[in-house]
Amino acid sequence: MIISMRQHATKEEIEHVCDRIVNDFGYKVHSIVGEERVVIGVVGVGDVTQCLESLEATPGVERAMRISAPYKFVSKEFQKDRSRIAVRNLEIGGDEFIVMAGPCSVESEKQIMESAEGVAAAGAKILRGGAFKPRTSPYDFQGMEGAGLKLLAKAREATGLAIITEIMSDADVGLVAEYADIMQVGARNMQNFALLKSLGRCGRPVMLKRGLSSTIKELLMSAEYIVAHGNPNVMLCERGIRTFETATRNTCDISAVPVLNELTHLPVVLDPSHAAGKRSLVPPLSRAAVAIGADALIVEVHPNPEKAISDGAQSLTVEQFRRMMEDLKPYVALWNESRVGEPALVG
Amino acid sequence: MIISMRQHATKEEIEHVCDRIVNDFGYKVHSIVGEERVVIGVVGVGDVTQCLESLEATPGVERAMRISAPYKFVSKEFQKDRSRIAVRNLEIGGDEFIVMAGPCSVESEKQIMESAEGVAAAGAKILRGGAFKPRTSPYDFQGMEGAGLKLLAKAREATGLAIITEIMSDADVGLVAEYADIMQVGARNMQNFALLKSLGRCGRPVMLKRGLSSTIKELLMSAEYIVAHGNPNVMLCERGIRTFETATRNTCDISAVPVLNELTHLPVVLDPSHAAGKRSLVPPLSRAAVAIGADALIVEVHPNPEKAISDGAQSLTVEQFRRMMEDLKPYVALWNESRVGEPALVG
Amino acid sequence: MIISMRQHATKEEIEHVCDRIVNDFGYKVHSIVGEERVVIGVVGVGDVTQCLESLEATPGVERAMRISAPYKFVSKEFQKDRSRIAVRNLEIGGDEFIVMAGPCSVESEKQIMESAEGVAAAGAKILRGGAFKPRTSPYDFQGMEGAGLKLLAKAREATGLAIITEIMSDADVGLVAEYADIMQVGARNMQNFALLKSLGRCGRPVMLKRGLSSTIKELLMSAEYIVAHGNPNVMLCERGIRTFETATRNTCDISAVPVLNELTHLPVVLDPSHAAGKRSLVPPLSRAAVAIGADALIVEVHPNPEKAISDGAQSLTVEQFRRMMEDLKPYVALWNESRVGEPALVG
Amino acid sequence: MIISMRQHATKEEIEHVCDRIVNDFGYKVHSIVGEERVVIGVVGVGDVTQCLESLEATPGVERAMRISAPYKFVSKEFQKDRSRIAVRNLEIGGDEFIVMAGPCSVESEKQIMESAEGVAAAGAKILRGGAFKPRTSPYDFQGMEGAGLKLLAKAREATGLAIITEIMSDADVGLVAEYADIMQVGARNMQNFALLKSLGRCGRPVMLKRGLSSTIKELLMSAEYIVAHGNPNVMLCERGIRTFETATRNTCDISAVPVLNELTHLPVVLDPSHAAGKRSLVPPLSRAAVAIGADALIVEVHPNPEKAISDGAQSLTVEQFRRMMEDLKPYVALWNESRVGEPALVG
Repeated sequence: MIISMRQHATKEEIEHVCDRIVNDFGYKVHSIVGEERVVIGVVGVGDVTQCLESLEATPGVERAMRISAPYKFVSKEFQKDRSRIAVRNLEIGGDEFIVMAGPCSVESEKQIMESAEGVAAAGAKILRGGAFKPRTSPYDFQGMEGAGLKLLAKAREATGLAIITEIMSDADVGLVAEYADIMQVGARNMQNFALLKSLGRCGRPVMLKRGLSSTIKELLMSAEYIVAHGNPNVMLCERGIRTFETATRNTCDISAVPVLNELTHLPVVLDPSHAAGKRSLVPPLSRAAVAIGADALIVEVHPNPEKAISDGAQSLTVEQFRRMMEDLKPYVALWNESRVGEPALVG
Repeated sequence: MIISMRQHATKEEIEHVCDRIVNDFGYKVHSIVGEERVVIGVVGVGDVTQCLESLEATPGVERAMRISAPYKFVSKEFQKDRSRIAVRNLEIGGDEFIVMAGPCSVESEKQIMESAEGVAAAGAKILRGGAFKPRTSPYDFQGMEGAGLKLLAKAREATGLAIITEIMSDADVGLVAEYADIMQVGARNMQNFALLKSLGRCGRPVMLKRGLSSTIKELLMSAEYIVAHGNPNVMLCERGIRTFETATRNTCDISAVPVLNELTHLPVVLDPSHAAGKRSLVPPLSRAAVAIGADALIVEVHPNPEKAISDGAQSLTVEQFRRMMEDLKPYVALWNESRVGEPALVG
Repeated sequence: MIISMRQHATKEEIEHVCDRIVNDFGYKVHSIVGEERVVIGVVGVGDVTQCLESLEATPGVERAMRISAPYKFVSKEFQKDRSRIAVRNLEIGGDEFIVMAGPCSVESEKQIMESAEGVAAAGAKILRGGAFKPRTSPYDFQGMEGAGLKLLAKAREATGLAIITEIMSDADVGLVAEYADIMQVGARNMQNFALLKSLGRCGRPVMLKRGLSSTIKELLMSAEYIVAHGNPNVMLCERGIRTFETATRNTCDISAVPVLNELTHLPVVLDPSHAAGKRSLVPPLSRAAVAIGADALIVEVHPNPEKAISDGAQSLTVEQFRRMMEDLKPYVALWNESRVGEPALVG
Repeated sequence: MIISMRQHATKEEIEHVCDRIVNDFGYKVHSIVGEERVVIGVVGVGDVTQCLESLEATPGVERAMRISAPYKFVSKEFQKDRSRIAVRNLEIGGDEFIVMAGPCSVESEKQIMESAEGVAAAGAKILRGGAFKPRTSPYDFQGMEGAGLKLLAKAREATGLAIITEIMSDADVGLVAEYADIMQVGARNMQNFALLKSLGRCGRPVMLKRGLSSTIKELLMSAEYIVAHGNPNVMLCERGIRTFETATRNTCDISAVPVLNELTHLPVVLDPSHAAGKRSLVPPLSRAAVAIGADALIVEVHPNPEKAISDGAQSLTVEQFRRMMEDLKPYVALWNESRVGEPALVG
């Protein structure tokens, strides 16, 4: 941590800051007397957040800057090898590029079975489908809940696909974990810390979606919550962030994929459907995701998008999905060759 | 709702859209044949969200635009008179400008009692203090929880101040409601729909903070959740949004105050502390909040900010708060005169 | 400047960095060996930008952080007293709160004369009106250019109001300076460096509008361009930034006013019309601007907004402006009393 | 255009609006009387901007929405076939994927010659290098100007590479056009309309970079300026937008590529260097750009990045660039096969 003092900080203020660092927090200080101001280096082990916040509030201090990353377990420094997360007989983050696909919501037995069969035939390995739906309006369909979970299980039995479905409240963790192979945390819950703690204790693999206005660092801190509470099986999902641009539903921050590959050992999934919000953009974004080194895709597919209860405009038909999977094959072949997500550079 | 067809939409596509509007959704259609494209007006009562999403996914449709507001109970159309929310012997949204103040977290009996006495003496009417703390890092102080709630109750008894404190999980609603006069929903939980529903059923007044990247319309939709589930006692809080600017912790969207005053009858609170993230900006922002017509302020005050466990840099000392309250007096006098929040214009 | 080395930077990399700081750039180094990584303090006078960019590109370096501000002449450290900018017989940044008002564009003699007389009668001291108009579309009205400038001069003669008008290209600086009392740089030209340099050489007072996505620091750097090229008469204008919120045309970053008051001696103007984009929000935002300590307002007023060629929706009628000026009087009285822009806090 | 009236608009207000549409602007009206409000469709040919702005300012109107695109010449509706822009013996937007590469600034003869030879050997076809540099600080290196242009010409002669270089002011258009094969408009000048008009008259191919906070629609409007003033040879460049995320210098809005491919016939270039701001992210982003269907890349390469005067941290060495070009080959082969930028979907 580096403390930058105000330009005209007094000797007493500087001494008081140093005194607090040493005596209140047990770190060592290292002052640099510049031409314009004094900068104080703080040396020591342990989490410095409280020291940092405290010193920022201390007279004479202009800014306190953290140098080391605030997360630990999820960092590349902590674990060099990529995490491989076992999901039934699959691995996310391993040697195979994985595609998850299915409808936004589970709507009926017919709809989810048709979806499951369609995406399985096209090469998807995991079925997505929401039983609990976070909806902006209280008047919109809120999901089939328990009944939806049962239909997902039925689709799994019929097709062999693993199941990913959303969990919205810590009260439902037990119920959802009975059915889901992967527990999905939606963007709006990325900092629902009560939920993150429950998922830490639950142990089931988790896919954590990045919040609409969350930084990459905050995404990693939320993953750290789950891991620190006991569950190392976390994958991260870039699904678009909120910006001023309205041509797409969100702005796909595709650079987040290589940035995360540099910072963490956790697998990275890309969701082109929510990022774009528009069907025709899903195939090109999916190609880009494979090329840039994501570990997996999660794609919305519906047997009849115009009858979908939610997200129809961004859902592919089964046939469109099949063609997209075909189109992706040579890119996946290149992915296999080089496991391209590895930082390709620096020499 | 207005459906704009693609420029080269076929006759069949247009007919199919009209057919769906009439037969699947029961609305009337009204087509406008323009020089470049066809636009279809949809006329009828009821919530149009599903119709809108469905048509957006229909071939030939370029865009479906909602004309009417998606919220109902919280709108000025539904209730012309401002809501006055009773909190013990006070009213938020009434004839008195209310100041809530206190520390970020409840840290100890001494700290919360000193805070309460200090802010009460300076003219605050409600004590803030977090017992459950949403923290970005799992390694930061997470709050005193139940013990913190008891200390807040003790401070209330000693000073007569009402209590506002944060609720983070639907599992804790019952516990927090035993102690709190106002249940605060933090920015990160603005779209925690499970929590919003519980608060709707709970009935206790709620202060709903705007999410970091939530639009004003989404804030109103989240308020609608609480009201639609049975609790009309909702106040809204602008606390800064996330933008590219880093000179302040967040960007205080002060225009949200008059915009909300035009759209809703619910009271509006401004939080200058989180908006600015810096102590010296709190007094000028507070003056602006009074002048622009907010109903209340919520301000962070700590007896010893540099020893605060969290948010010290944006907390005023008790003495600074006292001086700020003094400084605000003539502005509050003007507020009283004109109840300036009323749309002053149009003629 | 502080250089943070990568966690596993080699001894050679560290030495190479130190060597470059000392031998290529002539600064002193000051290393701090932390538990996790080495941090290098760079001590010396002069602009460090090039050193910083160069070291960021050097192997083993994780990040190079500037500690001192990159601007000089515009900073409070350089000049403690607020700048007072003389404009005819007025001062911006002095003891009087100044209101500039008028139409978006000069459209005709009748329109500009009516505007000028109306705003003068209501208490404005400076007339705004664009003769050169930056328009998003090439098909929109681009301004009356030279003829518009002449009409502004005529309005000045008739009313005694000073004139502020926009300058869009360095090629026009001479022409516009013949007529304008204040040269306005629009948001889209805030980093048109060729223009800024010309305005530096021109000497005429300049009002520099903040770019739609420019930070406060970048605004100050652009002001520094003008001052460094010889013209100290610069005032800054907050006119709303671009964010995800669409309820207003832009998001008024009102905190920029006290932030600028802490960082610079230059006067600060607020433009509520462009910030809000909607007539009814202009009066409440104007009250907030006075209360928070801006030095001046610039407001769009049109004799007949619905016939305005541009920006009609955010223009007040002359009568609405008159009422707003009336409504502002007690706030301006408070402003006079305390010159409230001064940092009110810290004790 | 659609006019949505306020919920309680009076009959007189509605009639006045209709009257203005018909009599002031010469369009036809088509009213839709909904349950809650009246919506008025406006039918006719021609640019509707002024009508729209005017009606928005008219009493009783809530919102005026444009249905048709505000640009014309650059739209796919105007020209179905992709534009191919001839640059010496090359075509941008044609059958070959083009890579432009070189240093941020021209710094010396040695530096630009080494760069040119290095990037040519690796497969680049166009040399980038700034002679006029837009710098945030007036104290930073502002470019070699005329002397830099001459060095670029010399490098072209030696290597056969075409030249792209930045133009910052309409005053310099003639000078720069003597040397440049492509005139580059930087992000900060995207809405420097005086410059855009000059480039329209100049005729030389232009690469227009998207502004930091400009929407895709605004980018197209700026391109329309150039085309409408006589120059159809425009290519667009996505170079990252400004968001809240700080892990990268800007946020690469990669979806802009397929969005632009749907809306316009103009070629699209991606600049991974400015988008990322960090060397190690350039190769993965470049792969993604090829996969998603961009027409070209523009990449910063410097013989010795740590000695670069600007942008060293995001510049590749010549050797790193060579390896990246090698790595891109199979992706370019796939690009060639399918000219993947074509909308792959819809069926």
